[in-house]
Parts: sequence; C-alpha cells; structure tokens
Amino acid sequence: MQGKFITLEGLEGAGKSTQVANLSNYLKTLGIEVVTTREPGGITFGEKIRQLLLDPANNISATTELLLFYAARIEHIEQVIKPALESGQWVICDRFIDSSYAYQGGGRNIPIKWIKELTQLTVPTLIPDITLLLDITPDYIQQRMQGRVGDRFEQEEVQFFDRVRASYFDLANQESKRIKVIDAKQSLDKVTQAVIKQIDQFIKTVQND
Amino acid sequence: MQGKFITLEGLEGAGKSTQVANLSNYLKTLGIEVVTTREPGGITFGEKIRQLLLDPANNISATTELLLFYAARIEHIEQVIKPALESGQWVICDRFIDSSYAYQGGGRNIPIKWIKELTQLTVPTLIPDITLLLDITPDYIQQRMQGRVGDRFEQEEVQFFDRVRASYFDLANQESKRIKVIDAKQSLDKVTQAVIKQIDQFIKTVQND
Repeated sequence: MQGKFITLEGLEGAGKSTQVANLSNYLKTLGIEVVTTREPGGITFGEKIRQLLLDPANNISATTELLLFYAARIEHIEQVIKPALESGQWVICDRFIDSSYAYQGGGRNIPIKWIKELTQLTVPTLIPDITLLLDITPDYIQQRMQGRVGDRFEQEEVQFFDRVRASYFDLANQESKRIKVIDAKQSLDKVTQAVIKQIDQFIKTVQND
Repeated sequence: MQGKFITLEGLEGAGKSTQVANLSNYLKTLGIEVVTTREPGGITFGEKIRQLLLDPANNISATTELLLFYAARIEHIEQVIKPALESGQWVICDRFIDSSYAYQGGGRNIPIKWIKELTQLTVPTLIPDITLLLDITPDYIQQRMQGRVGDRFEQEEVQFFDRVRASYFDLANQESKRIKVIDAKQSLDKVTQAVIKQIDQFIKTVQND
C-alpha cells in the first residue's frame, strides 16, 4: 500500500522540527514505518541548495529564490519522498509547496498564479495527504532570535512574516480539508496533543476509505 | 546610449571563449567599451550554481538543471548584464538563453513550449542583439576530451550533442536575422575572420539605425 504524505508548515520558531520528531515517534508506536525529512534539503544536492538559500551573503531576487526552492524540491521528491511512499512508508516533511506560496508568494509578492504555473510545470502530481499548520505570531520569531544572527529568512522584518502568516491562512481557508491549523502559541504539551489529535482523526479517515 | 548585447553559442570545444577574447579586443580597437562574461557564472552566486551544474557527482534531473540555469541567469542579468548595457558598455556573453533551448530542450528533451513559458516568467525582456553560433560536429568534442575527465555535460554521449546541434540549427533557422552560424571547424584564423566579418556587418546595421 502507498504510504501517506504529511507536511508541517509554519513560521520560523513555530516548533515544526520538534513536532516532526514527536509525530514520527507516535506513528512508530502505531506500527507505521516513517521517514522524516525537510525542505529544502533531505539529500546532498538539496542541502547545497539550502546553504545558498539561507546564507545572508547571497543577495538574490525573489524569482531566483523561488526557482532554487523548486530545483531542490524536484530532486527531493524524486530521490526521497516518492520512493518512500511507494515502498509503503509514511513521510513527514518539514515544509513543502505551501511554503512557496506563503514565503515567495505572500512574503516576497510573487504572483500566486506564477507559482501555480511553476508548480504545474515541475511537480504537478504530489499533494500532501494532510498538512499541519503550526501557527505563531511574528513576535515569537524575534524572541527566538535574541542574541543570534539569523539566516536569510530569519533576518526579515516583522511585516514580511505578517504577509507569510496571512498567506498561510489563505491557503488553510482554501484547502480546509487538507490543511489543519494548530495554535502553536500554546505550551509544548498542548501543541503536541493537538498534533496527535489531528493525526488520529486523519488515520480514522484513511481507514474508512 | 544603451550598449549592445552579443552572445556566443556552440558545443563544448567550439572555441567560444577564444572568440569572446578576440572579439573583445577587436571592439576595444574600435573604441567600444566591452564587458565579457559567461553563463552560468559571472558572479559569485552564478559560479556556485555553475559548480552544482557541472559536477558529475550531482545526478540531477533535466528540469532541475533547467531551473538552476534560469536561477543563475536571473542574477547574472540583474547584477552584470543590465547594469553594463545601461551604462553604454557592450556585453559579450559566452552562452545565454539559446543554450537552454539547445541543451535542456534538444539535448534533454524538455518541451520547448515549457522553456518558453519559463523564459516568459523569469527573464522576458532581454534578447541578444546578435548571436554567433560557432558550429562544430560532436566528434570535435571527443578529440578535445582525450585524456581528461569531462564535466557533467562533456561526459554526455555523441547522440546528446547531435540533438543539441540540431536544436541550434532550428533556432538559427527561426531567427536568422539574429543568429549567425559560423563554421568553427575551419582554422582558428578563418573562424576569427568570420566572427569579425559578422560583427562589422552588425555594426554597420547599428550605425544605420
């Protein structure tokens, strides 16, 4: 049987990587084989692209940024995500296409239509089965960054993250069946419980299919 | 006055870099300010992308390759080519968009329509004023490679370069006013003379405008 594809989305510091680990452990207790990965990255090539994208020294345009994310995504899908799903493993991925809509669309003002066209041209067939959007407000990012030099995204101003967050909500409203919003401003325990609850509901739906 | 944009195209080993240098020297004797550059590359970011593209260890798909070339191209245009042209300098560039049509379109079988769409989305406005296509047959590449390990393109088989060459001819036929084919199988002196002849004719046309 084909595995399921779960993605986590949200602003920097929303706790995505913690919840990827929690969720992976939880699914394993249910006897499900799990692969965890992240975008951009996951493979040697993707990690090289990740370095280019995150390094504040690379003063690149929004369109260039978008193309690099898609270049990394194509390889990540072909080399990591698809083979795992086809072998029946579940894949939990930290960020996916929704991030392009939110960050390059909302954050950098690239027309959504443009990003849709690029998606159609490059990665038309893979849609997550469920996406958990861990929602925080931009002030959480600044708290997290105190005393540390951020990467090229973390160095953005609050208005940037406001636009990204608004785009995430647009996506969640448009695709409410797939994208589940979780309040990540709560305590870690409560966020974890909310994540597990969504996944339990998802598993029930899958079993009824 | 806006500078002119000259590109050189052709297979590996056609002598493009030699002719870029010759042409640059020639234009300088006419009192023209010249910038020479190459694709992918020309700037720090582009050179990093170049390394990713040429390294045989990076086993990437045709679509990924195409997106990387365009990512590098966007930055190259914004940071090098446009500023030079706007300041009145002439730019001689070793490879440009025609290479994407020939290599990723002809060589790697990506639909031309697809590449046109990507071009429209990313770099719609810059077309070379004149393009010199230095034509050799693929057997010249193998002669050149003897005893040396090639990059990711040089390691391709003869059929690949046959397709690239055919695509170059298609382009030259479709845009015969812009693209001038030069037989680069001749002696270096004759090729240089042919290059200069084409540029002299181009300059006359420009002066009559």
